Parts: sequence; structure tokens; C-alpha cells
Amino acid sequence: MRGVVDDALPTDARFLRACRRLPVDATPIWLMRQAGRYMTEYQELRRRYSFEQLLTQPELACEVTLQPVRALGVDAAIVFSDILPILRAMGMSLRYDDSAGPQLEPLGDREPAALSFSELEERLGYTLQTLRLVKRELTPPGVPLIGFAGAPFTLACYALEGRPSSACTLARGLLLAHPERGRRLLAALADTVGRHLVLQARTGADALQLFDTWAGTLAAADYRELALPAARRAIALAREAGVPVIYFSTQTGGMLELLAETGADVIGVDWRTDLAAARRRLGGSVAVQGNLDPAALLASWETLAERARAVLRAAGRGPGFIFNLGHGVLPGTDPDNVRRLVELVHEESPLSGLED
Amino acid sequence: MRGVVDDALPTDARFLRACRRLPVDATPIWLMRQAGRYMTEYQELRRRYSFEQLLTQPELACEVTLQPVRALGVDAAIVFSDILPILRAMGMSLRYDDSAGPQLEPLGDREPAALSFSELEERLGYTLQTLRLVKRELTPPGVPLIGFAGAPFTLACYALEGRPSSACTLARGLLLAHPERGRRLLAALADTVGRHLVLQARTGADALQLFDTWAGTLAAADYRELALPAARRAIALAREAGVPVIYFSTQTGGMLELLAETGADVIGVDWRTDLAAARRRLGGSVAVQGNLDPAALLASWETLAERARAVLRAAGRGPGFIFNLGHGVLPGTDPDNVRRLVELVHEESPLSGLED
Repeated sequence: MRGVVDDALPTDARFLRACRRLPVDATPIWLMRQAGRYMTEYQELRRRYSFEQLLTQPELACEVTLQPVRALGVDAAIVFSDILPILRAMGMSLRYDDSAGPQLEPLGDREPAALSFSELEERLGYTLQTLRLVKRELTPPGVPLIGFAGAPFTLACYALEGRPSSACTLARGLLLAHPERGRRLLAALADTVGRHLVLQARTGADALQLFDTWAGTLAAADYRELALPAARRAIALAREAGVPVIYFSTQTGGMLELLAETGADVIGVDWRTDLAAARRRLGGSVAVQGNLDPAALLASWETLAERARAVLRAAGRGPGFIFNLGHGVLPGTDPDNVRRLVELVHEESPLSGLED
Repeated sequence: MRGVVDDALPTDARFLRACRRLPVDATPIWLMRQAGRYMTEYQELRRRYSFEQLLTQPELACEVTLQPVRALGVDAAIVFSDILPILRAMGMSLRYDDSAGPQLEPLGDREPAALSFSELEERLGYTLQTLRLVKRELTPPGVPLIGFAGAPFTLACYALEGRPSSACTLARGLLLAHPERGRRLLAALADTVGRHLVLQARTGADALQLFDTWAGTLAAADYRELALPAARRAIALAREAGVPVIYFSTQTGGMLELLAETGADVIGVDWRTDLAAARRRLGGSVAVQGNLDPAALLASWETLAERARAVLRAAGRGPGFIFNLGHGVLPGTDPDNVRRLVELVHEESPLSGLED
């Protein structure tokens, strides 16, 4: 039996074993946005500090990272950070507004250059410092730590729109209208993101996740032409650091086969996608992470438990499955529901992905 | 040769023939949101009248409906209207704000009752009057007129959230947490929407479209349980009026097979979905409408033409295809690009869906 609590080496942790499609003693679970607004402990910090302060002060970001690990018993920590500061590091103006959310000045005609390792170390050093602190303070010490970044296409949507509409229509229009400029922007973002992921792994991240939240706003042909090569480039760089890479996107149920072409070790699928079909369509060479509807956590425990069991059944008993939501935890979620969900997945995981 | 211009009877028009999967002389084309902000003629009216006035004053709504028919040569008119006033007719407060968009007071604990035919005639009489005026003034007279409504699930998202987030998370959470109340709300909406569609057909609409814009925020299992039965109920009612019904949804590429179960004559598919696969997966008993990426209209004519030809090729030569966008025309679209697109589809349609 290998388990998070028994082992001090993260590489033996069930989350990392599942990333590598090795047998596990129980299905690993962590949740996107497991740190944040739905937790009382987070709300208490937010009353005293701005979101910007929580992000950029490593002691605070470390504390927020650890809150859900202590409270929920999840199988991985994910560094408290955000995908947008990398755009500020590339020269764009970014401000977090408490009511209106992130305010980003659209890129306009500027063509930002890719950042070097040393520029990234200097400008996003606070996140690297957070990773160091978390690694030192993680209890139990065997819990793996995930670093992350936004994927090039998703960052391009933010950069071009300032604040994307739900379908990134303006950004997609600009990329179609100015394909050469778009390719240069995506390449600069891919190199910057890839290097930032490498730095996070060198500073202690045991796995890396690339968030391509807006990929599913593209037609499959455009995904193949725009988002896929850029994600592949970032992931190829990141994988040189030697830790598993997870690629998460939403609304991409119509082009799952293409997601495996990113070269990621694990594909995160959103809640709209049938997980059993996703496992089949992605083939045997990648692990799968997902995909409980975050809205199920707003329902009664009975409804939630039924939906969670459906995810375990759909995942099947093959290796390489990590339980997660199909998107981030929603504000208003009852933390007790989340804690019980983690217990259920561990206890009932004989339904899925186990050693015989 | 049967064509819109040659015939005075809309039932012989190529758009209606394609809805019924009959041979056509050229691929019919109309565009979602073909009337609106991107047209100079519309902007001129909007400088003098509010959106609310354009909606509710039949002479103005008629003029807006006719603008794209005159300017673009499309094969169908769609009545200028909106999906939200039906919620006002059911007792909810609705206000259109020029900058913030529609402002709807969330439903809270109220349980609105379905409206009768006479209540709908009284409260949404202005749209019926618009249909009468358009039928009288449509030139050429053979151009068919489309009536429409929002689908029950999509209206429930607006009713529960006031203004839905891109994933309708709050509404989906409420529907999962209170399934019985949710079913009652969806049933009341289905009956009301179905009756409103019937009234539009009786007043001159030659076809009806049901917009289920938010359906794709649901996991397939929840779509089957919540959105599908409600859409089917509305469509069953609407089809009694004897005109073809189109069902349009977005982000539903992962559950296309279920869309055909709505009972609609035509399935509208969004731009994310591969159209050739959609035709196969939907089977031979329904027509298909779609699915050029609206962002392609923001690109150069060369890029646009290439994408339009790809849609025609993907649609193939089988009967029952209507060219449309995969969502509405975007603000900022060059009307000249739209006009050339309509010409291209008519001229190059030997690529798709034709009589031999």
C-alpha cells in the first residue's frame, strides 16, 4: 500500500503515480480552485488583505495554499497564484478590482517579447518564493505540490480583449484577421509560459498544470492551427523539467483527440464531457483528470454523492485517473460537502483506477 | 429551378424546402442576428429610439426585420424580437440598459405559472403585430419569415440568475439542489414558450426557432434530465402549428445525438462542432443549420471565403442543409463581408445539398 500519509517522498504519492499511469492504493483527488472564497479561513484573510497582496506576498500565498490541504485531506496542493500576472511581467498593465475582477489593458498594437528565465525569476519571484515556503511547510510532507500557468491561447484572449467575453470573439476575430501577428504573440507566450513552468518545477513543484480555459471557443480547425501548436510548445519546454504536465481546457468535448496531441501527461476534462467516452477517445497513453460538475457541490449531499459515484464509475478501473472537478470550486460551496467528497472518493475508489 | 425570387409562395422557398429535407436549387442562407448593431441602417434607428422601443413598437421592429433582407439577399427574415420579454410577461421585472444590457430581477422563491394563449396575445401582442406587418411588407413576397423564442432551460438560467454567468453555475446549482421546483419552472416555461411559438406561426411565421443558448453548460446527463424534456415539450406544442421548428444550442458538440431527441425538424449547430461529423451523428431524419464561426466575418475576405467553403464542403451534398453562422453576427462585422458571404453561398452551393 502506498499512500500520501504513509510516505514522505512525493514521487510515491498516489497523485503523482496516477499522473504516470502507475497503480495506486486509492483514487487521488484534488480540486481546481480548492483554495479560495468558499473557505472561511480564506475569507478571514481576505478581510485583512487585498487579492493582490495574497498573490504577491509569499507568506500569505503559502498560507492560502495550505488551507485546503489541512481542511480537506486532498492528495495535492496547488500553489495559490493566478494566470494573469505573467502578462504584467510581459509589460501589460494589470489591476485586480474587488468588484469588477481583473482589469487588464488590452495589448493593442504592441508585440510583447518572450521573457527569459532571469526576467521571469525577477518579475514573478514571489510565486517561486511561495513554492519554496509551501514545500517547507507542507504537512504531511508527502503531499505533492502543483505549479501552474495559463496556456498561450487563453492568455492571448485576455491580452487582446482585456477582459474576454464568454466566447473570446474579439480575440478570435483578431487572430483570424492577423494570423502572422497572432502566431508571433502565441509563440512569445508559449516560450514565456514554458519557462515559467520550468522555474516552478525547479523551485519545488512536483507537477505542473496548464490552464487553457478558452481553448473551447475555437472551431477544431482553428484549435489545431492556433492553440494546439502553442500549447505543445509550452508543454515541450515544461516537460524538460522532468515532472508530469496536466493540460486542462473547457468546452473541448468535440475535439478531445486533439488534446492528447499537446504532449501532456494528463488531460483534464470539463464536466460537459462524458468521462468514459473521454477515456476511450484519448487513448491509453495519457492519464485523465476530472470531471465532476462544480454545481453538484451546491446540491444536497445525496445528489452530490450520486454524481461523484457516477464519475468514479465512468472513470473505470484502468490506471491513470485523478478525481477533480470539471472546473473550479464555486463561491458559495459548502466546505463540508467538499470534505465529504474527498472522503467518498478515497473510500469508494475500489470503483476506479486501482491496483488489483 | 425553385428560388426565393421566382416564387411568391414561401412554402416553395429554398429555406423551407431545406428545413423539410427536400431538394433545393441553391443552398439557403440566413444569419442569426442578421438584423442589428453591425448595420448602419440599424445604428441610425438606434440613435433615435431605445432598444426597448425598437422591440415593442411594431413599425420599428418591422423596419429592423426588413433591413437585412433588403441589404443582403438572405433566404429568410427573422422577426426582430428578444427572448427575455416572455419572462416579463410571466411577471418578472426586465429593463434594457444601454451599457449593462438586459437587467432582470432574479426569480427568487416565486414560481411563475404558464401563460395561456390569451395572456400571451395580450402581453406580447407587439411581436405578433410585427409579424403581421412584416408579412405584408416583405419584398420579395416569397421570402419566408422566422419566429422564435428562448428554450425553457436557457430562460430558466436567466430567470434564476438575473444575468447568467458564462457557465450558468448559479442556475445549474439551484436546479440540482431543488430538482422538483426546477422541473415545475421548466414545465411552466415550456408550455408558455410552446404557446408563444404557436401564436407566431398562426400570425404568419413560416418557421420557428428555439434558442437554447445555455444548454451546453449542462453535463450530458443533466441535459437529458432537465433541458431536453422541456425543449421537447415546447417543440411538440410548436409543431402542432404545422411549420418547421429549428432547435439551436451552443457548446453541445459532446451530446449531439441527444439534440435530435428534441423532435425539431432542423438542428442548429455552433461553430465549435465539426459539421461533417454533426451530419453523421444527427442521422438522416433531421436537417442541419450552421455553422460558420462568426469571428470569420471579422477577418479578410480571403480568410472568410476559405472558411465558408470549408462549411459548404463539410455539409456535403445530402438534402437538408441551411447555411448559417454558428452563433450571431458580431458587432463590428463589415456588412459588405456579409453580403459577399451570401453571394458566395448561393453561387458555390453546387458544393452542397442540391438537386441533381
